[in-house]
Amino acid sequence: MLADKERIKRNIKRMQQKAAASGALFRPHFKTHQSAEVGKMFRREGVRCITVSSLEMAASFALAGWRDITVAFPLNLREMDMVNVLAPSVRLNVLVEDAFVAGELTKKASANLGVMIKIDTGYHRTGIAPDDFPKIDAILSVLQNTPMLHFKGFLTHAGHTYHAAGKEEMIRILENAKRQLLFLKEKYSGRFPGLMVSYGDTPSCSVAGSCQGFDEIRPGNFVYYDVMQYHLGACSLEDIAVAVACPVVALHPERSQMVVYGGAVHLSKEFIAADNGFRLYGYVVRLNDDYRWGTPLPGAYVSSLSQEHGVVTLPQKEMAAFKPGDLVGLLPVHSCLTAHLLKNHTMLV
Amino acid sequence: MLADKERIKRNIKRMQQKAAASGALFRPHFKTHQSAEVGKMFRREGVRCITVSSLEMAASFALAGWRDITVAFPLNLREMDMVNVLAPSVRLNVLVEDAFVAGELTKKASANLGVMIKIDTGYHRTGIAPDDFPKIDAILSVLQNTPMLHFKGFLTHAGHTYHAAGKEEMIRILENAKRQLLFLKEKYSGRFPGLMVSYGDTPSCSVAGSCQGFDEIRPGNFVYYDVMQYHLGACSLEDIAVAVACPVVALHPERSQMVVYGGAVHLSKEFIAADNGFRLYGYVVRLNDDYRWGTPLPGAYVSSLSQEHGVVTLPQKEMAAFKPGDLVGLLPVHSCLTAHLLKNHTMLV
Repeated sequence: MLADKERIKRNIKRMQQKAAASGALFRPHFKTHQSAEVGKMFRREGVRCITVSSLEMAASFALAGWRDITVAFPLNLREMDMVNVLAPSVRLNVLVEDAFVAGELTKKASANLGVMIKIDTGYHRTGIAPDDFPKIDAILSVLQNTPMLHFKGFLTHAGHTYHAAGKEEMIRILENAKRQLLFLKEKYSGRFPGLMVSYGDTPSCSVAGSCQGFDEIRPGNFVYYDVMQYHLGACSLEDIAVAVACPVVALHPERSQMVVYGGAVHLSKEFIAADNGFRLYGYVVRLNDDYRWGTPLPGAYVSSLSQEHGVVTLPQKEMAAFKPGDLVGLLPVHSCLTAHLLKNHTMLV
Repeated sequence: MLADKERIKRNIKRMQQKAAASGALFRPHFKTHQSAEVGKMFRREGVRCITVSSLEMAASFALAGWRDITVAFPLNLREMDMVNVLAPSVRLNVLVEDAFVAGELTKKASANLGVMIKIDTGYHRTGIAPDDFPKIDAILSVLQNTPMLHFKGFLTHAGHTYHAAGKEEMIRILENAKRQLLFLKEKYSGRFPGLMVSYGDTPSCSVAGSCQGFDEIRPGNFVYYDVMQYHLGACSLEDIAVAVACPVVALHPERSQMVVYGGAVHLSKEFIAADNGFRLYGYVVRLNDDYRWGTPLPGAYVSSLSQEHGVVTLPQKEMAAFKPGDLVGLLPVHSCLTAHLLKNHTMLV
């Protein structure tokens, strides 16, 4: 995978400036890149606090020098040993949405730990409904009796912006989440002064003029963006900062297709669907000599993927420029999954 | 990922017996498991010839002791160095479907190499149409002038069996491919005595009573099978030999769902679609104390996956048996992709 440093830097600066202008702490999600090198680019821009989605990732970034990490995934009780290994040397925040889990945490935590309560502001994957005060209170009373556990506030991930019909709906989702979180902040900040409300997701943080009202924002995908974000209206084509360099292995002009070495094990099976069973697994770019790229080839797209084959459908006049052995760049539909698959095969250009 | 040795052994024996009864060489595709350990199980059953889908995989199995390897992927000219490193110590067969590629091969090959011509018997991903004799002849005349290159025969992968409406259609696809390949064998075996015809794909090799007529079969997925193969009618639920052990992290009885640590980076995004936007990303099993499993929980399935979250939809009475921190097993839709993602996290049980 090729990752364009200039585009990455621009994406980081833009989001960081928005966070600063909104008075929100910028705690980017590092699951998108999982790269110590890209991490350094954030550090050079002044970022000190990060989000990850597993203890394994937390450990890997702790080794790379990060000291303030939120694991934005419901606490996996089977990993309490890892929590206890990291917590003495890292300001570690974990997520809880269940009094049973909070109870186990009080029994098993052996070092200071920040705890955030996950709130479901409409995505309906994880989290407590924002008006389910008995559940919230049950967790808080468990936490309050354990001095090592510090309640930090309420956190949500508005993943339903990925299914929004357009920018207006994304903004509505963001405003709705803000209203729900600020209500909780108001209700509980007497008992817990300084509690924060934390908001995530790239689409709404990208399209919103401001993120004012949140104490913290945690977008992640924006560092690379991808074809999905472009389709959502969250970025421009010029913002997409990663491309997978694939060798051309077969040309089939009779059906306007060429086959590349680059399949589901490189790009992931994520696609964008349209009518009549149409599926798009990526855009296609010509790579320059410095392995950077411009706008996608007109009319060209990745039309199917198997384990290691990618089929690129493209106009015959575009195909005429390729022969077996040439490289072509594919812009992924979902850069997080692609970057995960290729994390040991990534080159900053 | 848990891989059940008894099921694997049974799956290997069954397919091997079918190949033997059909008089075909059994050259299983190792891209499914990519495991030296599972490779040893094949070796114990007498298998000596294998198929892989990349030079990297060929190198890895060569290091594990395999000496007769077909790379069933259109030759990637950018990897000629790897071809030349492996070819002196391994009986290596590569795939060609283009006279330009054959020409480059004659210039760059520095050791003996078997060459097979890829034929498209209806899948329309790669390969030459079986009646495109000018293309076939163009390749053959290039090969005939290079003593190091040995034309071995014609190879097809009938991947369209994955879209077949039922067993009868799979058998029709197999018979059709056989007819096409045997015609080519007949036509060219005067010039190339001993040329082989080689056939792949798990669904049709599983449902066919016999594979007689092919000189070689190359199924791969059968070693593990998966939910997709079960849906195609190619295996029973008891044949599915892999399950991903996932910790439960959140329970949401109000919507009959629980959330596990186990997402697209573990299972892949492959799904089975049905009407009304229904998607199934896997079945759900209870794991025994020895990490093996029985039949799937009735009414339970993986209903969505994000990067690291899996959402399991299941009846409330089944959910009542789980609490956060428990393990649950997920049977993957596509075991090849799951095994690839978890190849460094696999335990034979």
